[in-house]
Amino acid sequence: MELPSRLLENAVDEISQLPGIGKRTALRLALHLLRQPENQTLLLSSALEKMRKEIQYCKQCHNISDSETCKICESNTRNKSIICVVEDVRDVMAIEGTGSFKGVYHVLGGKINPIEGIGPSQLNISSLVAKVSKGDISEVIFALSSTMEGDTTNFYIYKQLKEYSVLTSTIARGISIGDELEYADEVTLGRSLMHRIPFEQSIKQV
Amino acid sequence: MELPSRLLENAVDEISQLPGIGKRTALRLALHLLRQPENQTLLLSSALEKMRKEIQYCKQCHNISDSETCKICESNTRNKSIICVVEDVRDVMAIEGTGSFKGVYHVLGGKINPIEGIGPSQLNISSLVAKVSKGDISEVIFALSSTMEGDTTNFYIYKQLKEYSVLTSTIARGISIGDELEYADEVTLGRSLMHRIPFEQSIKQV
Repeated sequence: MELPSRLLENAVDEISQLPGIGKRTALRLALHLLRQPENQTLLLSSALEKMRKEIQYCKQCHNISDSETCKICESNTRNKSIICVVEDVRDVMAIEGTGSFKGVYHVLGGKINPIEGIGPSQLNISSLVAKVSKGDISEVIFALSSTMEGDTTNFYIYKQLKEYSVLTSTIARGISIGDELEYADEVTLGRSLMHRIPFEQSIKQV
Repeated sequence: MELPSRLLENAVDEISQLPGIGKRTALRLALHLLRQPENQTLLLSSALEKMRKEIQYCKQCHNISDSETCKICESNTRNKSIICVVEDVRDVMAIEGTGSFKGVYHVLGGKINPIEGIGPSQLNISSLVAKVSKGDISEVIFALSSTMEGDTTNFYIYKQLKEYSVLTSTIARGISIGDELEYADEVTLGRSLMHRIPFEQSIKQV
């Protein structure tokens, strides 16, 4: 694919570095920007630049923030002794969306993934251990996705926290609300049977 | 979806202005950029800005170009009396890819589309008529996509060119090479029968 302009080619090359965007889509996006008023492209490029240069991470929980401490960690209504460990900011948003968690978060910034070269030292694990070691934390909830990498990360952190008197728990795995049993995968169905809960308790939760 | 940072929100808003990219994908892309080295974002934003500010359009054919006249219009080996009318730069690239056209192009920059508010005056039609009116052009080939909008545009230009002694033609519609007949749509199959060509001619073309 030979492009008629070096400037266009350069833009297409950079856009296609983004995940899930190939050269063809990148060209479509670049041509779209060329058809739009110049201002739209300038707003986009300056928003990207500003975000990358000025964004901060909360000193407490490593969540993305516009200030040194994020709103959740600053809030007086949150229970600071319960920490929910998540992978990234999208998981914080998902859990906040449920409105059912009143503790604080700890954002790891990824999962242990030897294939992609991500080890424990690249994640925000030591600061979590440091927080727990001070003794003010009563419970650490693991809310990582249920994959090989998520389970490995859970287990690694669990071992690091073992020496401190802190309760560790993991979010329940089971059949999604509204799902048909027959379409559930075997592992999920098996686990949801193993970790069954008293019926009275399930009614109260609703 | 409440984002924890105004800077991130701003970037997500701008990215999601692009066609086919929703808020969720925009957030995924923004978080990806935050995980990558700062340089990648800066290269992307400056490539976009530079492209939008500095790109030029060929004075002859309106194709995207880094100079006043594009390489195709400048070339001595192209037949300047045959003009192929296309919608945008991607069509030029597609036809150039076949290696079977040795004339020059005229890029309209879109199709007549009343629903989207695109009329003939927003397209590069008058410059095509002006070129033809000088009398040096022997043939104008319409190579727009075979949609309602494409056909409307073809017909509009055809009427504008009618008063000049110029041959107008349109690219052949028919069954794609390698396609099974039974899966072809009725209109295409009907047209390919109507516009059948002598067998000897079809052998020569291969």
